[in-house]
Amino acid sequence: MSTSSIRLFVTAPLAEGVNAPGSEAQAHYLANVMRRAVGDTVLLFNGADGEWAAQLTELTRKKVTFAPHQQTRPQAPEPDAWLCFALLKRTKTDMVVEKATELGVSRIQPVITMRTQADHVNLDRLRAIAIEAAEQCERLAVPEIMPPMQLPALMAQWPAGRSLFIADERRTARLLRFSSAASALLVGPEGGFTDAELAGIGAHPQVTRVSLGAQILRAETAAIAGLALMLATDPPQE
Amino acid sequence: MSTSSIRLFVTAPLAEGVNAPGSEAQAHYLANVMRRAVGDTVLLFNGADGEWAAQLTELTRKKVTFAPHQQTRPQAPEPDAWLCFALLKRTKTDMVVEKATELGVSRIQPVITMRTQADHVNLDRLRAIAIEAAEQCERLAVPEIMPPMQLPALMAQWPAGRSLFIADERRTARLLRFSSAASALLVGPEGGFTDAELAGIGAHPQVTRVSLGAQILRAETAAIAGLALMLATDPPQE
Repeated sequence: MSTSSIRLFVTAPLAEGVNAPGSEAQAHYLANVMRRAVGDTVLLFNGADGEWAAQLTELTRKKVTFAPHQQTRPQAPEPDAWLCFALLKRTKTDMVVEKATELGVSRIQPVITMRTQADHVNLDRLRAIAIEAAEQCERLAVPEIMPPMQLPALMAQWPAGRSLFIADERRTARLLRFSSAASALLVGPEGGFTDAELAGIGAHPQVTRVSLGAQILRAETAAIAGLALMLATDPPQE
Repeated sequence: MSTSSIRLFVTAPLAEGVNAPGSEAQAHYLANVMRRAVGDTVLLFNGADGEWAAQLTELTRKKVTFAPHQQTRPQAPEPDAWLCFALLKRTKTDMVVEKATELGVSRIQPVITMRTQADHVNLDRLRAIAIEAAEQCERLAVPEIMPPMQLPALMAQWPAGRSLFIADERRTARLLRFSSAASALLVGPEGGFTDAELAGIGAHPQVTRVSLGAQILRAETAAIAGLALMLATDPPQE
């Protein structure tokens, strides 16, 4: 019997004595890729009930059922931080979603701007990438991946209580720093925002222009570095 | 005549009235890919003499000569920051070198540790990636890419004046913050350092354990996020 810590995200509630079904893809992964068997233990999380050790009580190539028996970590609050980014080509979009998930964002919002090169995105694919990153990086939740929005609609519907930071390449703004309040980072396309877009964003009361450091960064690097700065806080001292 | 800003790294000295040769690859790029011609202007930098506007005075498919005529930016001091990282698979190593260059490191040192999966690296390939990133991100210098070193040799030869930060997954260390002094970030392999390696590193007087934030990060993400934190300082106020 193997007890190595495979971690899986499930949508079912997790509680002691309540069987939780996995997906067909998870059945395939456990049976065929990882060669697990009934009786083996895995770790499960669903974004709400913490992390649970669970036994496989049923496993075929298409079906898996878990029996959670012990909570290994309680659900903990996560940062209320969004990433809004102008859609990139597929490889870079994938990278941004993966890294943003690792860094701890709660929502990922692709944005269409005047100079955005891409306008289509496979949401199921991005959700799968986010789930895999959360599973591997010990997160207790998976960020919400939103359908792409046009920039003007995003700004028009921006929620009242949420700060929005945008990177300023004029390099005169103050450095982006940790904020414990509800916040979001907006990263523009490779070609930058247009002047009209910048004027519209800048007029919004919740927007703050920030620097991400002294260097000029590619869009995907700006997203990763910006989130590192926005989410970086001292860990709880034990 | 095109004057769009192609930026190229050259090894020749840059000064007014002194012809500077480019490489065969640059001749091919300018002539065949970018369709430039004699008389066109490009921007050049060499890590020492600032950035120069230069005219193409000779261009064939195999040979290019530049005539610098005006310095567009003076050489400016860059952070004295190194990245030392346990070698990753090729795609991830490429990404780390590209992003570390964008973020402004002066030296990139691949390291071999007990749990490092890779031990070979194509230095010419990594140097080409660093040059391209520096060209595109307006840097005035290209980081030095060092041949891989074994971890014990790296620690034994560590220079006396340089701080070395290592990420601590126990999450009790203080957050990595900007340091204007000579510094370096050391990122371990996917499987982590061994206990013996950690003991050896921890005993070194210049080593400080730091946190990169609350999350568990993949190795390449730790390198990028860590450099973002280590190099992030307020820009000069203009």
